[in-house]
Amino acid sequence: MKPINVGLLGLGTVGGGTVNVLKRNAVEISRRAGRQIVITRASAKDLGKNRICDTHGINLSTDPMDIINDPTIEIVVELIGGTDFVKELLLKAIENGKHVVTANKSLIALHGNEIFAKASKKGVIVAFEAAVAGGIPIIKAIREGLSGNQIQWLAGIINGTGNFILTEMRDKGRDFYDVLAEAQTLGYAEADPTFDVEGIDAGHKLTILASIAFGIPLQFDKVYTEGISRITRLDVEYAEQLGYRIKHLGIARNTADGIELRVHPTLIPERRLIANVNGVMNAVLVKGDAVGASLYYGAGAGAEPTASSVVADIIDVVRALTSDPENRVPHLAFQADAIADIPVLKSDCFKTSYYLRLNAEDKPGVLADVTRILADHHISIEAIIQKEPLRDETAIPIILLTQITLEKEMNAAITKIEALKTVTGKVNRIRMETLG
Amino acid sequence: MKPINVGLLGLGTVGGGTVNVLKRNAVEISRRAGRQIVITRASAKDLGKNRICDTHGINLSTDPMDIINDPTIEIVVELIGGTDFVKELLLKAIENGKHVVTANKSLIALHGNEIFAKASKKGVIVAFEAAVAGGIPIIKAIREGLSGNQIQWLAGIINGTGNFILTEMRDKGRDFYDVLAEAQTLGYAEADPTFDVEGIDAGHKLTILASIAFGIPLQFDKVYTEGISRITRLDVEYAEQLGYRIKHLGIARNTADGIELRVHPTLIPERRLIANVNGVMNAVLVKGDAVGASLYYGAGAGAEPTASSVVADIIDVVRALTSDPENRVPHLAFQADAIADIPVLKSDCFKTSYYLRLNAEDKPGVLADVTRILADHHISIEAIIQKEPLRDETAIPIILLTQITLEKEMNAAITKIEALKTVTGKVNRIRMETLG
Repeated sequence: MKPINVGLLGLGTVGGGTVNVLKRNAVEISRRAGRQIVITRASAKDLGKNRICDTHGINLSTDPMDIINDPTIEIVVELIGGTDFVKELLLKAIENGKHVVTANKSLIALHGNEIFAKASKKGVIVAFEAAVAGGIPIIKAIREGLSGNQIQWLAGIINGTGNFILTEMRDKGRDFYDVLAEAQTLGYAEADPTFDVEGIDAGHKLTILASIAFGIPLQFDKVYTEGISRITRLDVEYAEQLGYRIKHLGIARNTADGIELRVHPTLIPERRLIANVNGVMNAVLVKGDAVGASLYYGAGAGAEPTASSVVADIIDVVRALTSDPENRVPHLAFQADAIADIPVLKSDCFKTSYYLRLNAEDKPGVLADVTRILADHHISIEAIIQKEPLRDETAIPIILLTQITLEKEMNAAITKIEALKTVTGKVNRIRMETLG
Repeated sequence: MKPINVGLLGLGTVGGGTVNVLKRNAVEISRRAGRQIVITRASAKDLGKNRICDTHGINLSTDPMDIINDPTIEIVVELIGGTDFVKELLLKAIENGKHVVTANKSLIALHGNEIFAKASKKGVIVAFEAAVAGGIPIIKAIREGLSGNQIQWLAGIINGTGNFILTEMRDKGRDFYDVLAEAQTLGYAEADPTFDVEGIDAGHKLTILASIAFGIPLQFDKVYTEGISRITRLDVEYAEQLGYRIKHLGIARNTADGIELRVHPTLIPERRLIANVNGVMNAVLVKGDAVGASLYYGAGAGAEPTASSVVADIIDVVRALTSDPENRVPHLAFQADAIADIPVLKSDCFKTSYYLRLNAEDKPGVLADVTRILADHHISIEAIIQKEPLRDETAIPIILLTQITLEKEMNAAITKIEALKTVTGKVNRIRMETLG
């Protein structure tokens, strides 16, 4: 099957990330999509600019209309940002029969109703997973994964800048304006931070989430937004003492009287998973009548996390265009003829670190024997703790944490440790993962 | 468009939940799917048994073949469980051109390759979201939402019984066998708990997740499984002291040497979100090269959470059969003609609880004045804390937590409180949500 041609509008952070992901994962992607996906054209204001991506092989131009009017382009990916100008571009692309993928939250929140109406009329797809919560597939989760539910409410940390500021305020007892200045220096916050810290950006995303959750029109003008600039270090501290964390949440709730759409700082119980979402990370908690509470967590911004959703949308479009409906998504995600017989390792070959607990006689040299055996098997020790003997016992518990090692070596070492006269009973071995 | 007829095999917990969800959410579901979905037939071994669902209007029979051979049935939903017998049933259903939805993890893990091959040949869909992690749409997230990524590894708490036991051991310092006995009494654990606590059930689910993550055949026989019965209260305690939690994880990792597929107890750093997934809840952490780490959390079992995924799969099939590919999933999740103009409330009508911080003079009667004003506006107080004056100040900070109230009342009360002579400055008001 011939490759599908994609035209990219915008070669900034997300545009560059999209080029990189599509190139680096080309094999994986065509195994999944059943077809090659190629960016053949791209537009950018300044073609001389340094890019995070290699644009070799891409026909570049400064005018997005070159792409929109190119009959060889089937999918237009809009990563320029902004609203009015881009709206006209996309309406024209739809008019020309192109499918559209966009990461543009303000565009969808403000003009989505009009854009979708036109797309439906022209029979093209407009996909916008990347518009909310970056790499988290939250649109798909709500729109398809939870489609059997009446959504009762959702609450999300959907602005990374705001969450970074609140996290720093709590972790380091700092003041809002102090952290904001740092976030601006680090590039997490814009020179004009209003969009982020006053809840406008979160309001755009909430508008989209509420529409797909409740089946209501996009209506950003009805979202109540309140920023985090009035939150003081004292509030963070008092909240903490009461067992709460302060998070800037977008909340949409379907009540008997109507729908609440609100973005504001919120005290939430510290035991909730979402209360522990820190730094620039995003998370959305969705409450459905059947599923109960479910949470979706990940990077809400950044070149490649956002590109992850952009590319997923492109693949979605390609799968829709390429397969009959019954085979749209292959059962095992990859096309049946692309399933690979990669060897599955035996446990001897696992590589992980370990927690070891053993009981030893309280005699000199025990620890030396144990650590020598580990060293002989190239196992590095991360930490050792020797405990008091347990009540009614003379043996002392020794706990070791090791660095990553081959399981075969660990098994051999454990056999030798258990054979030591000074060690009683079995070594309790539990694997350890950082999951970082 | 005429309704789509679904036949249900099995009317146990998940079967009953599926009947209930499809009935209760019928309006919502047809607004999303663009078509009514009706269970017209169902089979169960014992038709006289008490059910959690109302089977009125469903043609019942004891023989599943009645349904499989019924030409009016387009989708067969298998919720019987078990492998060999059910495999034959489903192969026959596929042979008859039925689409299949199943929650059967062991069936897919052990016989999925054969079932999918036959389904592809016959051009029918076999959907199995409910087979892994109950209500969490993790299959869809990996298969579609993260399709642009090379998945590097995934790690999941995918057995609720095991997680319940480990959580109880940690929270209450209890022993494994003690908690297991309780879990059996509560119905969380089977009389023969081997499947759950020895990692077989998690191994089945891991088999499925690994296949869709890496594009490898289903191969349960190559999964390394180790149970949690050797974990002692001491290990849990020592791990805690070192900053770790012990979780029973299913881990699939794509390494340069091959793929690791392993289920075992694992020490993980306590600051990780997944380390804080407790009780019977499930969560899957997925690491992709573009998206980074993302986490999916929710109920991993139970009648309605599992039904949530079963019904989502049914809707997926209906959407595929009913719409042209471009309109498979409506832009805003609901069909364009089913978007409802539910009123969006003004902030005056929000109902939430509040954290209030105010500065008052250290004089008798201040608190009485404040609490009287709140009472006059029907605002109940949950907690009051009076703090020491801050350095260099004479005013004392008072913090109040309120119960849920109408925002209009709160605004009026705050205006009055700020007008008190004994209160200095503004009241800092932050909304509060339990998110429970």
